Amino acid sequence: MIKANDPSLHSWIEIAPNSDFPIQNLPFGVFKTDTRDPRVGVAIGEYILDLCVVGQYNFFELIDLDPNVFHRSHLNDFIAYGKPVWRAVRNRVSDLLRNDNTEISGDSTMIRECLVRQDEAEMLMPVKVPNYTDFYSSIEHATNVGTMFRDQKNALLPNWKHIPIGYHGRASSIVVSGTALHRPKGQTKAPDADAPTFGPTKLLDFELEVAFITGKETKLGESITPDEANDYIFGLVLFNDWSARDMQTWEYVPLGPFLAKSFGSSVSPWVVTLDALEPFKVKGPVQDPAPLPYLIFHGNHNYDINLEVLIQPEGGTENSICRSNYKYMYWNMNQQLAHQSSNGCNLQVGDMYASGTISGSEKDSYGSMLELTWRGANPIKLSDGTERKFINDNDTVIMRGYGEKNGIRIGFGEVNGKILPAV
Amino acid sequence: MIKANDPSLHSWIEIAPNSDFPIQNLPFGVFKTDTRDPRVGVAIGEYILDLCVVGQYNFFELIDLDPNVFHRSHLNDFIAYGKPVWRAVRNRVSDLLRNDNTEISGDSTMIRECLVRQDEAEMLMPVKVPNYTDFYSSIEHATNVGTMFRDQKNALLPNWKHIPIGYHGRASSIVVSGTALHRPKGQTKAPDADAPTFGPTKLLDFELEVAFITGKETKLGESITPDEANDYIFGLVLFNDWSARDMQTWEYVPLGPFLAKSFGSSVSPWVVTLDALEPFKVKGPVQDPAPLPYLIFHGNHNYDINLEVLIQPEGGTENSICRSNYKYMYWNMNQQLAHQSSNGCNLQVGDMYASGTISGSEKDSYGSMLELTWRGANPIKLSDGTERKFINDNDTVIMRGYGEKNGIRIGFGEVNGKILPAV
Repeated sequence: MIKANDPSLHSWIEIAPNSDFPIQNLPFGVFKTDTRDPRVGVAIGEYILDLCVVGQYNFFELIDLDPNVFHRSHLNDFIAYGKPVWRAVRNRVSDLLRNDNTEISGDSTMIRECLVRQDEAEMLMPVKVPNYTDFYSSIEHATNVGTMFRDQKNALLPNWKHIPIGYHGRASSIVVSGTALHRPKGQTKAPDADAPTFGPTKLLDFELEVAFITGKETKLGESITPDEANDYIFGLVLFNDWSARDMQTWEYVPLGPFLAKSFGSSVSPWVVTLDALEPFKVKGPVQDPAPLPYLIFHGNHNYDINLEVLIQPEGGTENSICRSNYKYMYWNMNQQLAHQSSNGCNLQVGDMYASGTISGSEKDSYGSMLELTWRGANPIKLSDGTERKFINDNDTVIMRGYGEKNGIRIGFGEVNGKILPAV
Repeated sequence: MIKANDPSLHSWIEIAPNSDFPIQNLPFGVFKTDTRDPRVGVAIGEYILDLCVVGQYNFFELIDLDPNVFHRSHLNDFIAYGKPVWRAVRNRVSDLLRNDNTEISGDSTMIRECLVRQDEAEMLMPVKVPNYTDFYSSIEHATNVGTMFRDQKNALLPNWKHIPIGYHGRASSIVVSGTALHRPKGQTKAPDADAPTFGPTKLLDFELEVAFITGKETKLGESITPDEANDYIFGLVLFNDWSARDMQTWEYVPLGPFLAKSFGSSVSPWVVTLDALEPFKVKGPVQDPAPLPYLIFHGNHNYDINLEVLIQPEGGTENSICRSNYKYMYWNMNQQLAHQSSNGCNLQVGDMYASGTISGSEKDSYGSMLELTWRGANPIKLSDGTERKFINDNDTVIMRGYGEKNGIRIGFGEVNGKILPAV
């Protein structure tokens, strides 16, 4: 077991039992406050441990890194040090926060300087994203979409069980939780119309996804195996792949989704490390037919992470509309990354690889409005009496996720995004 | 007319009549030598004017920019200053190089410090590319591909004449001319096979394209018109969108090209400014049906640029196999960029937007082996007696381009790339 994951650990910081951020989690993020410029921190309970200040106190002196990498507006330079350093920093932070350690807790000035209340900080994008790929790895989602757009017998395309299907997405428009987005405009064409029209999308949707972030690069021409992928994946965030379904239907043949997706994607601010998620590893679905040799992996690479989607209308309360789980993924992260590199495409530090919509087999576990309302045929009733086929203006969509085992809850916090009316 | 384009200008540097880089061109690039670290330069005849040194001599003192932006391994910081500054720098460089100007030419030490022979320099990627889009804007190419993969009657899909179809590509694997690439491996499935196999592509192709680079950003939620796009486009490069046709066929439905393209794309090192190309503006094809209002433009935005593709086998001579022209584009750059931003997707400095394969109507003007050999049915005979259906190991593919008017030739130099055997 990784030392920082020890379930018997407690912190000198008081942490609510339902907190996403106990001492066993320690996710990394980037924040700023009125008095602190952008820098790297670690979430602990209701607080952020400011790694920039911790570094200035020389608490990382035994780790082979320049503590100035925490004085950045992104995690890229830190995670580029590689897995031994991520792990050493997380273990050191765990030590500093243990209830039997007084290096910080014994000095009230130091406590004041090292800790920031989360509600007094603004979270920023955790990484600069040089490349973004969106996979399509939930068999339930692919089957649902295939059933709707083609027919039930041919729902899954012939390549789906052989290839972790994916496509390149737009990196520039990935934003951190809390960033409002305008309803996008675009071309749509009704099936019976002669010509398309241009205007605000009528079918704005979310997609419930989890994305992983790479912390190690490969050279052009190199490929990695699914087993080697363990050293490349730094951690995970929740990912809302906003989608305009009417624009998508009209534009996507033959080259795939483009403007139906590129108006914005939202991520949660705290990157939960793969190390912290170690206790939640589970066996994935049986892959039949067996994957080709370059996609064969060892060990478990699915993760039992509960996922939830909520809609909050303007001034209203939260309505839980979907409960899914990351463990449903047919293709796992390690296979996705090995596939991405299999043609020699070079991986970079900070790359974001999203799972694709994570749907389960139950109707309330579908990860998009498209599936939940079956293209609008079965609207969802909210607590205020209104109905939703898709997302309305001024709705906020919230996604949350956590794993729980042995009384320890490792959470992601949330990704939320409000849809403003079209410009 | 832009001052630096004056056809009566001559330089104190001797320039061969067939040079791509007369004083009317002045493209920007990034280079290094044994003694000079990466920096920005301008091509002039057989030389590079080192803007880093020119800046140190205060020759840009009347322009509102920090001359240290030329001491970079990319053009991004320079072009982020915007069009008035690009134009002022190009005009100033034009003045410094005129045969009646002695500011540099009158001082032999200065000449030695400011000029570097191109054959003694290594050209680097001209920009850091935050986002890369590949369009599909040649009606001849789309029709050829549609005829081969579907049928002649339904060659163009219903959306093609309404939307400048495009998709997001992989930015990390865009490399500068002269970078050899390994033949990629990937999944392919023969039509009559039960299951796919993994191995080196058998159908390696090039795509003849031109890409434009943006030098101005928009905010998320903003859109620009085709007319406004003039202020966003810095310049153009030649672009080889390498493609593995057998991988593409198996993977691309429903989410578009992915690993069939992401193993590498090659660009020419000199960015020819839109200003330098002003004399080559021509009217584009009639667009019928009329585009939607957000795609309507004024003026001419097609460019009469002759394009050529050559294959050079290992140790052999160059074989010209395609002559096309950038003027054939159905959708122009301004429409492409307006479309990209129409959903509020934010543009960034250094973004690369490729045209898609540029084919003409004649058989020898098709911009890919797929079209030139009609999927291998009509192999091309090379001067050494060998035949090509697609690209062989150790072949070098070379693309060149230039415009010519009033005795002035504005060229791109070339993009070349050698295919090494699979790893």
